[in-house]
Order: sequence, then structure tokens, then C-alpha cells
Amino acid sequence: MSSDPLVIFTPSGKRGRFPKGTPVLTAARQLGVDLDSVCGGRGICSKCQVSPGYGQFSKHGVTVAPDALSDWNAVEERYDEKRGLKEGRRLGCQATVQGDVVIDVPPESQVHKQVVRKRAEAREIVLNPSVKLFYVEVTEPDMHEPSGDLERLRTALAEQWELEKVTADLHILQMMQPVLRKGAWKVTVAVHLGDQENAARIMNIWPGYYEGTVYGLAVDLGSTTIAAHLCDLQTGEVMASSGVMNPQIRFGEDLMSRVSYSMMNPDGAQEMTRAVREGMSTLFTQIATEGNVAPDLIVDAVFVCNPVMHHLLLGIDPFELGQAPFALATSGALRLRAEDLDLNIHPSARVYLLPCIAGHVGADAAAVALSEAPEKSNDLMLVVDVGTNAEILLGNKEKVLACSSPTGPAFEGAQISSGQRAAPGAIERVEIDPETKVARFKVIGCDLWSDEEGFEEAVASTGITGICGSGIIEMVAEMRIHGIVDAPGLIGSAEQTGSASVFADGRTNSYLVYDGTEKGGPKITVTNRDIREIQMAKAALYSGARLLMDKFGIDKVDRVVLAGAFGAHISPKHAMVLGMIPDAPLEKVTSAGNAAGTGARIALLNTDARAEIEATVRAIHKIETAVEPRFQEHFVNASAIPNAVEPFPILNSLVALPDVTFNTGGGGTGGAGGERGGRRRRRKAT
Amino acid sequence: MSSDPLVIFTPSGKRGRFPKGTPVLTAARQLGVDLDSVCGGRGICSKCQVSPGYGQFSKHGVTVAPDALSDWNAVEERYDEKRGLKEGRRLGCQATVQGDVVIDVPPESQVHKQVVRKRAEAREIVLNPSVKLFYVEVTEPDMHEPSGDLERLRTALAEQWELEKVTADLHILQMMQPVLRKGAWKVTVAVHLGDQENAARIMNIWPGYYEGTVYGLAVDLGSTTIAAHLCDLQTGEVMASSGVMNPQIRFGEDLMSRVSYSMMNPDGAQEMTRAVREGMSTLFTQIATEGNVAPDLIVDAVFVCNPVMHHLLLGIDPFELGQAPFALATSGALRLRAEDLDLNIHPSARVYLLPCIAGHVGADAAAVALSEAPEKSNDLMLVVDVGTNAEILLGNKEKVLACSSPTGPAFEGAQISSGQRAAPGAIERVEIDPETKVARFKVIGCDLWSDEEGFEEAVASTGITGICGSGIIEMVAEMRIHGIVDAPGLIGSAEQTGSASVFADGRTNSYLVYDGTEKGGPKITVTNRDIREIQMAKAALYSGARLLMDKFGIDKVDRVVLAGAFGAHISPKHAMVLGMIPDAPLEKVTSAGNAAGTGARIALLNTDARAEIEATVRAIHKIETAVEPRFQEHFVNASAIPNAVEPFPILNSLVALPDVTFNTGGGGTGGAGGERGGRRRRRKAT
Repeated sequence: MSSDPLVIFTPSGKRGRFPKGTPVLTAARQLGVDLDSVCGGRGICSKCQVSPGYGQFSKHGVTVAPDALSDWNAVEERYDEKRGLKEGRRLGCQATVQGDVVIDVPPESQVHKQVVRKRAEAREIVLNPSVKLFYVEVTEPDMHEPSGDLERLRTALAEQWELEKVTADLHILQMMQPVLRKGAWKVTVAVHLGDQENAARIMNIWPGYYEGTVYGLAVDLGSTTIAAHLCDLQTGEVMASSGVMNPQIRFGEDLMSRVSYSMMNPDGAQEMTRAVREGMSTLFTQIATEGNVAPDLIVDAVFVCNPVMHHLLLGIDPFELGQAPFALATSGALRLRAEDLDLNIHPSARVYLLPCIAGHVGADAAAVALSEAPEKSNDLMLVVDVGTNAEILLGNKEKVLACSSPTGPAFEGAQISSGQRAAPGAIERVEIDPETKVARFKVIGCDLWSDEEGFEEAVASTGITGICGSGIIEMVAEMRIHGIVDAPGLIGSAEQTGSASVFADGRTNSYLVYDGTEKGGPKITVTNRDIREIQMAKAALYSGARLLMDKFGIDKVDRVVLAGAFGAHISPKHAMVLGMIPDAPLEKVTSAGNAAGTGARIALLNTDARAEIEATVRAIHKIETAVEPRFQEHFVNASAIPNAVEPFPILNSLVALPDVTFNTGGGGTGGAGGERGGRRRRRKAT
Repeated sequence: MSSDPLVIFTPSGKRGRFPKGTPVLTAARQLGVDLDSVCGGRGICSKCQVSPGYGQFSKHGVTVAPDALSDWNAVEERYDEKRGLKEGRRLGCQATVQGDVVIDVPPESQVHKQVVRKRAEAREIVLNPSVKLFYVEVTEPDMHEPSGDLERLRTALAEQWELEKVTADLHILQMMQPVLRKGAWKVTVAVHLGDQENAARIMNIWPGYYEGTVYGLAVDLGSTTIAAHLCDLQTGEVMASSGVMNPQIRFGEDLMSRVSYSMMNPDGAQEMTRAVREGMSTLFTQIATEGNVAPDLIVDAVFVCNPVMHHLLLGIDPFELGQAPFALATSGALRLRAEDLDLNIHPSARVYLLPCIAGHVGADAAAVALSEAPEKSNDLMLVVDVGTNAEILLGNKEKVLACSSPTGPAFEGAQISSGQRAAPGAIERVEIDPETKVARFKVIGCDLWSDEEGFEEAVASTGITGICGSGIIEMVAEMRIHGIVDAPGLIGSAEQTGSASVFADGRTNSYLVYDGTEKGGPKITVTNRDIREIQMAKAALYSGARLLMDKFGIDKVDRVVLAGAFGAHISPKHAMVLGMIPDAPLEKVTSAGNAAGTGARIALLNTDARAEIEATVRAIHKIETAVEPRFQEHFVNASAIPNAVEPFPILNSLVALPDVTFNTGGGGTGGAGGERGGRRRRRKAT
């Protein structure tokens, strides 16, 4: 026995002795080495390529002779001729062990390979998709031993792949017989490996060896936009990313107005369900075209969304989400079929919806948690997904708390007099000159500042059309830094502020950012009402975060992660001047980009992550801000810029905010708090 | 311990000691006594009614004192006032044990009660449906501990009924929230208890305690007719039975012509699928109306059908069933959802299709096997389901063989010159006078023979319109008994036979059964071509049975069971004279009525029967007649009446068949065999 050759696999380090003549693939399987194969060792798929190493390996204590593996055989010769085998590579199913050998499994030959991610700090994604491809040889039908084609295919999967009790939807049964015959009883099947609710299932079938791959969709269904990534389930690669507006916008910009629509119109919820599913169809057609992928090759999909979108997608009336106690119809993860949701991908495709955390904290927040993993962090992390509704997570390895806060659409440029969505022509960066107190700015689609040479020519095609969310945040923060706005949120007069940009505008003052009227463009201003809108939005966000900090029993956080597409564009300094987020070292305020979308992609590519996030969500402590008495107090304090009571020591060490007051007796912060209180009552907290 | 009162349940005989004050229902549950309860012991449903016995029970060795159970309590008083409790009955959840007691569980209080069947010899059906009702009290939503309504309902089912991991389709999620609130968090749910492929699932939900029941459909999907029984799943009672013509008939009378239609028309199979599903919708609407049952209360359905109908129902092209090796797409039992098949019952309703035995022996034959259970018989049983295609089972406890044989539609009155379907006005019984050799007959819808007084008046409303299947069998057999037809199947001339009813009809002779032309009615005759058709049909049937006997290694059977609606009307003596069935004692030839429909009903009412028939079907030996060399030989022999070579000793001891020959040199049996051979080739056996 001990004279059998020693086989050592890298990078796993797994080792064992095997009789001479054992194929490398067989040795790998017996040792549990992660070596891919679709054809099951028939020399067809070439997925099991390995790189044998020769010479002395002192680390492993072996010397590998030049004849440690069998000579190239006819199958390898043919493969190399037809497709070319990389220098030094062998087919694991053809090369047999002849002596002690060290065999490297290159990343592309691993089933559970790591998926490349752009962010350095991001957790890795290990590929472990729900659907895999298997090549099988099926026994032909025999009149004397009659059995169904499916039953013989099942037997083949059990015998050749140890896949037990594989079932098939009607769609597969309807297409299976001609494919089996076309492939002369050799077929490739895509098998969903099953989950806690469902047996393994055949998702697609091709005659012979199928050279292609199968795809999945990671879908982030937002109130405003629906975005999706189309991923290759064998490599993890993103083939296309695309987005469309959520067609439900015609029923209301924000979620609560959609809930109202469903309450006031008998078929309102159904209309909105139809609309969002149609939007999905448009998006899926678009992304499949873009990725050049046939829709029936899309066999899995993961959805993340807020609770209202979650219910509307499923065809559940969101009525209960509009009033306390904000009861979800179902909070657990859901495993459905594409056809249940009328999705235009393979009708047998599986759909996974991440669990919802609470009535206001949806599967999108769960996806953020999956992507950012606060429950694995040593630092105390505050994760804020900034959108129309902000979802907030606070936690570390000890525990994780979650809440949502209704920021409203101001951060997306809505309800701001010159506001607009982030699009070319929108002002996204602002700086106010400390001396002149006049603003210079940058617009999306142009790298120049507005006072730099060539700027006018550069923006000629897009124009200067308004201010987007990140622009208004910088604008208000700059106005506060330069004493144009006071802490309670009033704009001073031109005299009080010494700024020629300020002008009287009815009973309050406004600030002129840009006057394009001479060229037929807009006059872009910031009114005191705009300041109020931003105060309300940021106060809602901050007071949610502050409430979680109370519950956690701490008053500062180690790190702040801004999630959401918008989060990527926020300047940490300006956000802190505004008092949107708690005081923290600037370098510890980072953007996670579209973390909800990333979470969806993780759950798509690694089925283990599904069980993981389900457990995480069960463990999260949910806080309902609507009924927390301190929320209102935090909100009123947070209406001030940056805050009426909290010290913000780190911020103060960086920026000295002028101690100005423009209040002349009437109006003031009370208004902001009062208006917000009114809006919050739409949740009907009891 | 031993001083605790002794509780004895009848009829089970289960007994145990329980502390004073134990509710009878609790004692029953702990002993595993089959005592029903929907409300879980809350005194609402009254399903747990028991009859305590008092006095001396020498059999059990106990004396029951008058105070062995607690006095009536307020719940029992109220129930008795409102609905009336039968004399001597107690509510098992309210009455508590106070002393030794004997408690009878009446049949209606048993969950697994026996379903009444009409046939004395029929196996009993023990009720054990897939769907049961459960009353639960669900925890209200709590903002501080957010969870979905479904999740709390699941917890309630787990805690109150030990039902674990119950899931729900989208349809249920869509309707659940208002129902929970309407019932003030008390609801009744219908739960499908799950099976090997699916977790338990909520099928319907009602606010509060639901007084009603749920229903299931047992559907026999035949080539010609679709018949269904609507059954109460709590009592097993048949609420309505109904049938419609299979709308596929417009694509071809027999199965092979439908397979041809699908081959010759690109969307032929899809058209036929639509047609049969539409037929099903018509039938289900009809039966629900007849049973006065809302369609969404129908939560389970069992289908039996031949392989071609099986595939067309599922939307699978039956192409492969039209040619050797007659490969089924799937042979196993199928578990689907009603919406997968566009059925107009509750969209979440479950659908179970019995397994197919082989490419020509379908789920209908499996249902016959379930109903007649040859695998449990000590006698060697031949079970013949007579239809356009005959399915034949032969077996006993040792083994069971199965085949099918293409009898064609002659037994249904088709392809017979005066033939018609069984309907009022059709001749169904025939006797030929030994002296005059003239026939008298009975028609469907009239109890008088045609030579009895009052016959003409009695049939005035229906007329005398033709001969149905059982009529033509008796007719031909009578003609053979009375020497009008010879063994090879030729009708003699009037002179040869001495019958005034025979007349020359071209190159052959015909027999006049009835001449209604004077009254504007038809002239009903039996032509020599009709005799040929019957010869071919009965030869196909017999040779299939004979082939199975060969395979079994025997040459006589103990019993013959005629299944199929038509089987119920066949006269055993005449069938044996014709040589349709093997020689057997007449009293051992019985009819099982629509055994396929009964099998469907068994599988509907008792889920254990599903696993049972799946195991039986796997064990059945399948014989493909198309490729058995002896089949042709048997067929040729069986073309003679009763048979060219087989002795039929029991038949001969009962009837002396005259040894006549009318062959004048040309034609004869060869013709029948030859034609049949031609028709059989349409199966394209290779």
C-alpha cells in the first residue's frame, strides 16, 4: 500500500496515495479536491484541466519524476489539436498517476472558485451556484422493460453524478424527449441542486455535450429604479448590468403614496403588481439582449427589495404595511418559480427572495447586511443605505440592530426647487469661495469646475440643468461652513452673510448658484424651503442612526458605510457638516456602492450565503422608529445643522463652523420638526 | 400510579391509566386513538364526540360508575342547546376522566374512518386524505418583534398541531392577511400534509372556525369521455359524479388517430392539450354546480388516464407513444399544482397523476390495479378493462403481469353497421329463439323484451335506434349458439341456418334484428362485416390475455374481472361463447364497474394508497404485445368463435355449440386476421 504513488494537490494541500493508473480526476474526487468536471471524466468538457509540477518539492517532501503522469493519450491529443491545451496543462480525467506527483488545480478548474470583486475591503464571494451542468449518458428505452425517459435520466444522474431524486417541471417534460433523441441519449442537463423546500430539479436540457453556460439574475427592485446584474453561474462573471425606471412611479413617487394608491383604488395593488412585473420584463429583455444571452438560459434569479415592493412584486396588497403594526404577509426568504411571477426567463427558473427584516426594513436591507456583514465585524459599524427610505444597520460581532427611517426623496433631488435626478448636466459638487462667498461647481459629465477655462464649452451639450442629491448636500454644507446658513437652517440676508449670491425671495432669502437665463437655461437657486427639506431628510436619517446607538448603549461608532448608488457620491466631510451621519474619522466613512445589489449577487452566486443571511436576519434586533419616544427628540435635535445638542468633536477638529444666527423672531427649526412630524403620522403609528 | 383511572377506548381496545381530570381527547391522543378534532380541543368543532359506556364490562374487566366522567360543563351545555348533542354523547375535549371508563369512538368521530362502498367484494377504503382542516390561534403582530403573518401562522401550526415547516403558495399569501384579521387571529386552515416531493402546504384559509369542508376530484380521463367524482375529503362521501365527452374526439376517435394528428399538424399536440383542458374546465364547472360546491374549495385532484391522454393533458407531444419502443416521457406518479394544468379549481390545489405502467398501459390501468388489487389475491385473477384499448392484468400474490391490446372501438358500437353508443333506444340484450331462430331483444330504457306486451308503447319515446356494445356481443354469441354463424365467423344462408331472419346481402348474408322502416325507423341488421369487426376486437382482447397466461406459465385462470363501464353490461356466458375471455366458471366472471374511476377515488381519499400503487406498478411485469411473436398466433386462433384451438371445457359443459360450417371456399377467418394485422402495424413495431 505505502508503495503506491503519493498525489499532492495544490493549493488545497490535500494528499493521498493511489494505485498506479488512477486518473487524476478520480484521485481528486476521492480526496474531496475542488476540481470541476461537467462530462464526468469522459474527456469532453476539459473543465478538469490541471498543471502537474515536476522536480523537487522540498515543502511537500517529494520529487516528481518526468514520468510521474501517464503520457498524453489520444483524447488529449485530439483536444489539443481542436482547441489547444495551455502549456503544461493536462486533462485530469485522462492523465493517470504513475509516480509521486504534485498537481496544481488552477482557479478556472475549481468549481468553488473565488469571484473577483472590485472593492479591496469587500468580502470574497466563493462560487457555489444553485444550478450546475452535468453531462450524462442515458439508457435507451426498452419495450421489454418499459420506463419513462425522465426515469432513465434520473437513474443516470443518480448513477453518474450521485444526484438523487431529481425532478422536473412540466416545461422540461414537454421539451425533453426530442432532446434526448437528438443527442443520441447523451445530454447535458442544468440541475438546480435543491434547497430546504425543494428537491433537486432539472432546469434545462441540451443534446450532447453543451458547450455553453447558464445564467442568473441578481435584481435590486427599488422604488424608483429596477437594476439587475446578469451573471454567468459557472464563472461568476457579470455579463451585463442594466436598469429601468420602476413603472410604478406613475402610482406615486414614494412608497407610502403607492400604499395609499392601493387603499384608495379597488384594483390598485393588482395594477401596481402588473406594472412592476412589466418593468421587470422590459429590464430582463434589455439585459439579455445586452449580454447576448437567450432568456431561457437564465435559470436562477435573486431579488432584493423593500417590503412594499416585495409585497407588490408578489401580488400581495401592501395595505398592512401602511399602518401599525406594519405586519408583513411573510418575512422569511421565499423560493418561487419564475412563472409564478410572470418573469420572461426560463419558466422553470427558480426565484429566491431574501428575507425581510421588518415591516419597514426589507430584503434590500438584508442584502446590504449580506454584502457588508456587520455581524462579522470587530469594529462597531454603522451601515446606512440612503434612498427614499433609509435602512440603517448598526452592529458588530456581538449583535446587530436595524431600523428604517423615512428620509423622503430630497436626497434624490426631489422636492428641491432646482433639484433633479443624478444625470448629465446636474450639479454634483459645490465649493463656496471663503472670500466672495460665491459658489463654483461641477456638473455630471464634465471634469472641470465651473470657474475653470473651457467649462462652458464642455457643458454646452448637456447644459446645466439642476442640482442632484449629492450636489444639494454639498451646497447646504458649504453654505453652513461659510456662514450663509445658520445652525437652525435660516439663510441670512446678503448683508448678514456678505454674499452677493444671496437675494431676498419673499419672506426668506435664497442663494443663487447659477443663472443660465441669458442663454435660455434655468436659474439655479437654493431656497430656504430647500434647506428645510434637506434638514428633514438628514434629521430622519441621523435620528434613526442615533436611536440604534442608544439601543446599543454607545455614543460613537468606529465606522460608517454609506450604501446605495447615491452613497457613492456623498462627500463624507459635507455629510458630517450637515449632521447626516454621526461624528467619525473621515477616513472611516466609506462607500459600499450598491450594496443591496451586491448582496443579491452574493446570494445568486453562493447558495450557502442564502442560509447565512436567513440566520443573520433572524438574529438582527429590529427597532421600529415610529413608536420610539426618543426618535422624535433626536429628530428635533438633528434638524439643526449639524445638531442642536450633539458635540461632533471630530468634525469640529476639522472644520470650524461659524456661530451665526439669522433668526429674527419667527419661523425657524420648529417648522422643520413640525412638518416632519406631520409627514410621519402617515404611518399611523398608534 | 396504578390508582389512576383506567380508560379503555373501543373499537380500538387501546387502554391506559390517566390522572383524574384528564380530558378524554387528551387520553385518546396519548394512546394514539383515532379521535378527530379540528379545533384542537377548544370545544368548537364537536368532531371529538364520544359515547361513554356505563355499568359492568366483563370483557374489559371494569365496572364504569355513573360519575366516571365529569359532569356536563358550560361548553357542552351551550353546544347541546345550539346544535343538539346526540343522546349519550359527550365532547371528548370537555369531559374529563374521573374513574375507570369505557369510551366508544363512533365512526363519524374517527379521522381514518372507512368509506362506504357498494360492492360487497370490494376492498375497503380507509379515509386518509392529503388535506385536513386545522383550527389555530395565531399570535398577533408586534412591532417590537416583527415577523410575517405567515411565520406566526406557521408557528401556531407547529405548536398547536405539530405540523412542521408548513409553506404556502403565493395565492395563499395573497389572501391571508385580511382573513387573519377578519377572524381576529383565529383561523381554520386546510393543510396539504405534504408528500415525498413537497413540504406541507396551506391550501386554503378561513376566518374563525370554518364549519364547512374541503373537496377533492377523482378524474377518469378517457379517450372518449372524461368522468369525475367530487368527494368530501372529511367524510369520503361522493357529492356529485359527472361526465363530459372528451373534446379531443374532433381530432380522432381513437388514440392512434390523435397521435397521427399531432404528427401531421405542427401545433396539433398543443391544440389537443388545450381541448382536453377546456373539457376539464367544463366538467369541473358542471360537477361543482351539481355538488353545490365553490370551486376554490376543491383542493386536491387525482387523475387516471391512458398514456396518450396523460401526455396530452400534461402538454407533452405523444409522438413517441406512436412508434416503438413506445417511450413515455415520464412513467412515475406526478405531483403538480392545479394551475400548472390550467384547472379551474383552487389554483393551489394539488394534482396527483397515478404512475403509468408502460407506453400502452397507462395510469388508468394502474388505477384498476389499485381498485382490484390482483397483487393481494390468492386466486389467479384476470382483470380486463374493456375500452377502445383493452388493458389486461393477470396475477396473484406471487406476481402481476400487464399488457394492453388494441381492441378498437367495435365493443363501443363503433364500426358496426347498426352500432351505436349505449344510450336509450339501443339494443343491449338479445335472445334467439331456438326454434324460429328469430331474435327478441331489450333496449336501454325499457325493462320489457321486444316480444312482450306493451313493449311498443314503452319504447315509443326513445325508438329503437341501433345496437350497443353489449348488445352486439350477445347478438353474435346467440348467432353462434343457434348455428347462424359458424366458428370461422361466416353467416349461413337462410336455408343453411333455417332462420327467416337471415337474408342474402351482396356476397355474404346478414341477419335482420329489427325492421322499423314501416314506422320511419331504422332497419337493424348484423352483417358479416360486423361479425368480422367483433372477431377482430375480441381476438385482440383474448390474445392479450392469453399471452399473459403464457408468460405466467398457466392455461387457466381462477377469476375474471371485467372493468370499465361497458364491462358491467357484458353477459359472462355470451362473452365466453364469443371467446373474448378465457374459459372460467361463470360465477367467477364478475364486473368491477368503472374500476379506473374507483382507483382514482381510492388514491384521492387515502394518500397511503398512492405509495402503495407506485410500489405495485414498479413490481408489475410489463409485456409489450406488439413484439411478442406468439401474439399473432393467439390472435389468429382467437379469431374463430370461440377459438380455433383452445378447448373451453367449462363453456362446453354449459353450452353445446353446433358444429356448422358455411365456408364455400373463399374468404373466411384469414380475412379477419389479415385486416387486424394491418391495423396493428400502425403501431410501427420494429
